Amino acid sequence: MAENDIKLDFERHERLGFDEAILSAGKSTEHLIAILKKAGDRSLLLTRLDQDALAALPTALTERIDYEPLSRTGFFGPVAAPSGTKEIAIVTAGTSDVRVSREAARTLAYYGTPCLEISDVGVAGLWRLMERIDEIKRHRVVIAVAGLDAALPSVVGGLVPGLVIAVPTSTGYGAARGGETALFSSLVSCAPGMVVVNIDNGYGAACAALRALQGGSK
Amino acid sequence: MAENDIKLDFERHERLGFDEAILSAGKSTEHLIAILKKAGDRSLLLTRLDQDALAALPTALTERIDYEPLSRTGFFGPVAAPSGTKEIAIVTAGTSDVRVSREAARTLAYYGTPCLEISDVGVAGLWRLMERIDEIKRHRVVIAVAGLDAALPSVVGGLVPGLVIAVPTSTGYGAARGGETALFSSLVSCAPGMVVVNIDNGYGAACAALRALQGGSK
Amino acid sequence: MAENDIKLDFERHERLGFDEAILSAGKSTEHLIAILKKAGDRSLLLTRLDQDALAALPTALTERIDYEPLSRTGFFGPVAAPSGTKEIAIVTAGTSDVRVSREAARTLAYYGTPCLEISDVGVAGLWRLMERIDEIKRHRVVIAVAGLDAALPSVVGGLVPGLVIAVPTSTGYGAARGGETALFSSLVSCAPGMVVVNIDNGYGAACAALRALQGGSK
Amino acid sequence: MAENDIKLDFERHERLGFDEAILSAGKSTEHLIAILKKAGDRSLLLTRLDQDALAALPTALTERIDYEPLSRTGFFGPVAAPSGTKEIAIVTAGTSDVRVSREAARTLAYYGTPCLEISDVGVAGLWRLMERIDEIKRHRVVIAVAGLDAALPSVVGGLVPGLVIAVPTSTGYGAARGGETALFSSLVSCAPGMVVVNIDNGYGAACAALRALQGGSK
Amino acid sequence: MAENDIKLDFERHERLGFDEAILSAGKSTEHLIAILKKAGDRSLLLTRLDQDALAALPTALTERIDYEPLSRTGFFGPVAAPSGTKEIAIVTAGTSDVRVSREAARTLAYYGTPCLEISDVGVAGLWRLMERIDEIKRHRVVIAVAGLDAALPSVVGGLVPGLVIAVPTSTGYGAARGGETALFSSLVSCAPGMVVVNIDNGYGAACAALRALQGGSK
Amino acid sequence: MAENDIKLDFERHERLGFDEAILSAGKSTEHLIAILKKAGDRSLLLTRLDQDALAALPTALTERIDYEPLSRTGFFGPVAAPSGTKEIAIVTAGTSDVRVSREAARTLAYYGTPCLEISDVGVAGLWRLMERIDEIKRHRVVIAVAGLDAALPSVVGGLVPGLVIAVPTSTGYGAARGGETALFSSLVSCAPGMVVVNIDNGYGAACAALRALQGGSK
Amino acid sequence: MAENDIKLDFERHERLGFDEAILSAGKSTEHLIAILKKAGDRSLLLTRLDQDALAALPTALTERIDYEPLSRTGFFGPVAAPSGTKEIAIVTAGTSDVRVSREAARTLAYYGTPCLEISDVGVAGLWRLMERIDEIKRHRVVIAVAGLDAALPSVVGGLVPGLVIAVPTSTGYGAARGGETALFSSLVSCAPGMVVVNIDNGYGAACAALRALQGGSK
Amino acid sequence: MAENDIKLDFERHERLGFDEAILSAGKSTEHLIAILKKAGDRSLLLTRLDQDALAALPTALTERIDYEPLSRTGFFGPVAAPSGTKEIAIVTAGTSDVRVSREAARTLAYYGTPCLEISDVGVAGLWRLMERIDEIKRHRVVIAVAGLDAALPSVVGGLVPGLVIAVPTSTGYGAARGGETALFSSLVSCAPGMVVVNIDNGYGAACAALRALQGGSK
Repeated sequence: MAENDIKLDFERHERLGFDEAILSAGKSTEHLIAILKKAGDRSLLLTRLDQDALAALPTALTERIDYEPLSRTGFFGPVAAPSGTKEIAIVTAGTSDVRVSREAARTLAYYGTPCLEISDVGVAGLWRLMERIDEIKRHRVVIAVAGLDAALPSVVGGLVPGLVIAVPTSTGYGAARGGETALFSSLVSCAPGMVVVNIDNGYGAACAALRALQGGSK
Repeated sequence: MAENDIKLDFERHERLGFDEAILSAGKSTEHLIAILKKAGDRSLLLTRLDQDALAALPTALTERIDYEPLSRTGFFGPVAAPSGTKEIAIVTAGTSDVRVSREAARTLAYYGTPCLEISDVGVAGLWRLMERIDEIKRHRVVIAVAGLDAALPSVVGGLVPGLVIAVPTSTGYGAARGGETALFSSLVSCAPGMVVVNIDNGYGAACAALRALQGGSK
Repeated sequence: MAENDIKLDFERHERLGFDEAILSAGKSTEHLIAILKKAGDRSLLLTRLDQDALAALPTALTERIDYEPLSRTGFFGPVAAPSGTKEIAIVTAGTSDVRVSREAARTLAYYGTPCLEISDVGVAGLWRLMERIDEIKRHRVVIAVAGLDAALPSVVGGLVPGLVIAVPTSTGYGAARGGETALFSSLVSCAPGMVVVNIDNGYGAACAALRALQGGSK
Repeated sequence: MAENDIKLDFERHERLGFDEAILSAGKSTEHLIAILKKAGDRSLLLTRLDQDALAALPTALTERIDYEPLSRTGFFGPVAAPSGTKEIAIVTAGTSDVRVSREAARTLAYYGTPCLEISDVGVAGLWRLMERIDEIKRHRVVIAVAGLDAALPSVVGGLVPGLVIAVPTSTGYGAARGGETALFSSLVSCAPGMVVVNIDNGYGAACAALRALQGGSK
Repeated sequence: MAENDIKLDFERHERLGFDEAILSAGKSTEHLIAILKKAGDRSLLLTRLDQDALAALPTALTERIDYEPLSRTGFFGPVAAPSGTKEIAIVTAGTSDVRVSREAARTLAYYGTPCLEISDVGVAGLWRLMERIDEIKRHRVVIAVAGLDAALPSVVGGLVPGLVIAVPTSTGYGAARGGETALFSSLVSCAPGMVVVNIDNGYGAACAALRALQGGSK
Repeated sequence: MAENDIKLDFERHERLGFDEAILSAGKSTEHLIAILKKAGDRSLLLTRLDQDALAALPTALTERIDYEPLSRTGFFGPVAAPSGTKEIAIVTAGTSDVRVSREAARTLAYYGTPCLEISDVGVAGLWRLMERIDEIKRHRVVIAVAGLDAALPSVVGGLVPGLVIAVPTSTGYGAARGGETALFSSLVSCAPGMVVVNIDNGYGAACAALRALQGGSK
Repeated sequence: MAENDIKLDFERHERLGFDEAILSAGKSTEHLIAILKKAGDRSLLLTRLDQDALAALPTALTERIDYEPLSRTGFFGPVAAPSGTKEIAIVTAGTSDVRVSREAARTLAYYGTPCLEISDVGVAGLWRLMERIDEIKRHRVVIAVAGLDAALPSVVGGLVPGLVIAVPTSTGYGAARGGETALFSSLVSCAPGMVVVNIDNGYGAACAALRALQGGSK
Repeated sequence: MAENDIKLDFERHERLGFDEAILSAGKSTEHLIAILKKAGDRSLLLTRLDQDALAALPTALTERIDYEPLSRTGFFGPVAAPSGTKEIAIVTAGTSDVRVSREAARTLAYYGTPCLEISDVGVAGLWRLMERIDEIKRHRVVIAVAGLDAALPSVVGGLVPGLVIAVPTSTGYGAARGGETALFSSLVSCAPGMVVVNIDNGYGAACAALRALQGGSK
């Protein structure tokens, strides 16, 4: 991977309000090093960075990375301090889905945006969700993370008035089809006006929430 | 269609506890007449019988058919009078799914088995279901009919202890994929021990409920 | 269809900020009449209402319906007058997609929400989009409607900072797969933070935009 | 995985008649430990627990687990002693499917429910099934486990009057499509009233059988 | 359709032992007339010829066609008289599948090859098949026609020693997937050495049987 | 795997003319040992037996196995000596497909049936096939093994009069879809009367050829 | 359809060397009229224009359209006279595919580009292709049109040195899957360097051929 | 793998203008050695040759291989020196796609054909593409490599007049479906006359470009 194969989109922040993130999965160590060198003093969000891939980087780089293993995210360089009130809630169906919802939370943290995280409130135990629903519905954006039949986003979408972003996950086997069942199920949710991102894409859901909060260009 | 192409399974009742039903869709008028003649004095349940197909039959046959248009079912010959308490509940998500749940109810009626029918209790308006849940959960078998994301069977399955049979329906468009999304969603329901029948197969759900109630051979 | 098969969710507005809409496709004339009677003096939004289905209704009902044929939408009863500034833009790739984008625009109109509509700006003629991009990017929410390869939402998503809602359409044949190609393409858009609704679901995109603007419960 | 990411549904037994089971596949050692600690003195059924995952747990926990390797199930804590007559039969097509049928049998054992297990009676050697069919048909519920073309459940469903639960398995290659062929084949079985659970889901089939036996709430 | 767009393969009989057949579906009346004219005095087998398409042809042509409506086949010109003993059996699962098995029988008749036809012996009523199995197994080739779960070919394949050709049919709905379930199910049959042709392709099964009987070139 | 989970079908040879084969893939070492012990002095054909799986067996068993690594087949116990003339030809498109065609050849060898094997005659170099076609067409059965677009079976099927059995292979990537493209392509071959077996199923093709040669029961 | 919903891309010719074509299918009569009026004196190519849609246009417009029914193409306004030598050959597998190859030929005719058309040379009768192959291989571009197994493009691709563009067609049923089998088969052709366009897209193949001949901008 | 299982197509160059390439993936070391020995003094292009597979070859062979790791290509023996002007441009969307575009560039290099390579110009940062578009559009052939939504080929196809060959890549996860989304998206591109090769098939795109440049046989 020669250096001129890489053109980081440093103007993205100005244009869209957030930086280019680096999807680390599928990139070689050599490739990741070239990207981090190109970044120089700028901060970068690294997603899907396996612990093995992290360990393979030179220490001079890893010591500049704030890594969280469950979400496999790394902050390269300093990030914004959290500020403002919580306008985004993240609710998660099962504990196996937390790897995805944590990616969303970490993406928000990278931009200094605080959020409420509530886990393990899948509808198989509906009372767990109902206990928290009044708190959840006060948020402008709700990110609902669920695999399998993705019943959680539908139930949430029928109860809260803000923007509901469904994140289908690849949790499950057989007819779960690697998350496609949750994806299609979310797309045809009986709750009106739900929107959907790609399977396991916690990063994308967070970016969408940031877009919804920041609005258009001035 | 020569008559010796048709061999009705009249021994089925003795073996399984219910008769052969005639799936009318895809059969020609000539074919249906041959079947009804072969039946003679025995009763038959006709499913997926369109009004046009009914109208094409000779009057001598149609006047022996008790027809219900929404479910497209016909009872050929006399059927059993309803008897016993209601041990089966049928709950339906949307009004577009009633064509399927009514097929289940009519199949039960053919066998003289009473049931409770509750419609339009999809989870987008969760309160509609919650008002009735205590009544529903007292039944030994609950048939839950829903298309789209099939969130209803999952919510029901998490709240009632009896056998829950999900019937996915072909309601919806696009990512509903003709009912496959509801089918897969039901198969990976987060509620434990749910069972599933084919898309739009109200007849099959009713037969399964009858099997659950009647148990093994003596 | 007996009347007690229908339970309209009149509390939805209070809960979510918008009413239940009636997806007319697949419902019989008898069924539609029962719904409109149940509505009484309340207003309803009718979607996917074919001209034939409209014509089959009694005059007493049709004269209360404000119908628009391209989007196949009807307003039953009075709707809110447009108020406020335009915070939502709707951009459409090809003229065959306008049936979908118009459904979104009509849904917004039903709620008195004005929007900017721009048609036929697919990326095969990129200059048509570029001429308008500065105007588009000032909106808080952009609904991007496209079939085929759905390149339009990706290009828009890379240029505007607000919430971008992709609406894949069923335009095209063969590998377009009834809109699934546009759907999947939007879900994996190279533009970060794009969200997606079901194929041809202009109504859902408008509801999502309304959710984004109105935020959480107070 | 922080402890407050985990909310076990201990009320499930009261509601549904059986406990929450822990699908161990895809959960980290840390995650499993947190769950078992949260369980405390309560018993738990662990499914899809690989021997490697078991070995990675601390001895203090493993010595409380009764493990069976073929089904990859573990009983954490004491389980009910078997009681009552056998009302459930489990029949299996090929020896490669026993890993799934054993999961069903172990789930029943966890709840103290005895069952009849018959293996290697696939229809390629039809006489093997016919020798046992009179014994099988006396059971209230028959769980039929088969991969490939899933012909076994169809043949069984045509011969026994009780509830027949088909469990498609992922046995096979190519057109077996990871079990989807067996799944679809079971869903369209020519035997009336068959019900189906997810691919390889022996646990779900057992829960469904328990639901059928226990009936509704009192 | 100009005449030089058509090049009939009259040498096929010499090469392969059977003639080119004309798949009539999807061909215009003009196109069919051009083909029949090109054939001149040679005989042709017409498949998938709807009665409407037949009626649209000029009388001078239709009176040379021996038409059978259930299979939608036509013999254009004289065909061989039946000769030899029956070496091919055709067994059919349900009456809705006879349209396909009859196409196979008619193709054999076109070549003067007699066969045994047995209908309505699907495995849901296994005794119907078992009564005839000794007769069936004496044939060198057995064509087994079935839709839905295609259990019939599997059971037959486990009981007869000759070549078994499965013909999946498009009978059924939902998870039957237009015959794909029967197709995949036949391809992974638990019976060894079964072969499969395209969905609803009775013509192809008959040609395969003829190939098996005639063997290689001399 | 307890021994009574295994019921070998030793009567199969009498019924069908060939023995049960053991698909070794997916079976544990313990499971394989149990099967071989149950076989005792009888011979068995082992398919898909990886070298690692072979090496894990005890020497007392491996020394009774005649193993061929490319096809991953093993003969357990003595096999029949080759006898008779070659009536079966196996033609293979690419060298990556030989693993499958060799499985067919080995299966025939197990039953003492000689065959002609011709490799690397895919149609991208059509002359390679044409040089041998006269020799090929004299055989009663031709097994044509090809992945990718499976053009070889179609070309062969248009040139030879005997039974042509297509074996699609999983060779290739991307749109080859693990062999499904070759499978579907073979099923709709423009050559009439071609039959198809499962992807990579050389064993099944050989069994089908044996069925075609041996015919019905006497 | 208001007129400002339509923005024809009249600059396309200057940019790409060819005009915008109008895919008529799925457009209303009102919509087509608006487009033709907007075109004014400019010429337009209309594709997929059914005879009914043509007949519904006002005479003032239809008399300016040169229509060809098999390909369903119309030339609106004058077109270029044919000039230059034939550098493009179009070969077609079956007569049912001519509707697609003729669309390609008509597109070339619209731009005054002559071509060689050869029909009914599918590989089931290989000699028909071989008779013409020397003539075909002299062309710079060969468009190969075939449905079913798409064996024709593969054979052609192995014999000619120029650019080979495969056009899969939707001819066939069952496993032909509406042309997807031909599409995937072409994409994995064993002939190196073959390129593919969408199913039934004769227009696209012709445009690609024009691109290949005209090369880059000056 | 016996040597007579391998028949290299050395006449291909004469026929098509380029040699047979060896797809190394899925071939054993023994198999690769046999091929290279058969090649003798002739040059060969090796594709998809993993570094492990390379390292497993004997030194006598590896020292004759010019290997490039990112594209996993090897030149066995001497290759042509670059000559002529650059008529082919290769543009790539993301850095993860360079492994594919480099395979195309290396294939061209093997034949002595120079090309322009431009990386990381995906449309999420549209300005990066626009800066180079005038340079790109002067080439006779443009190979556009992109995964995910494949928006790059569409944008390029709308701006350049030469032949545009889209190479979809398997970059991405979830709804990217291993590259199928990019594949289908390219096939229905809104840019007219785009052609497509198999997923990740850089080699095939280069061969197609060579075909377009060299034209028909003389």
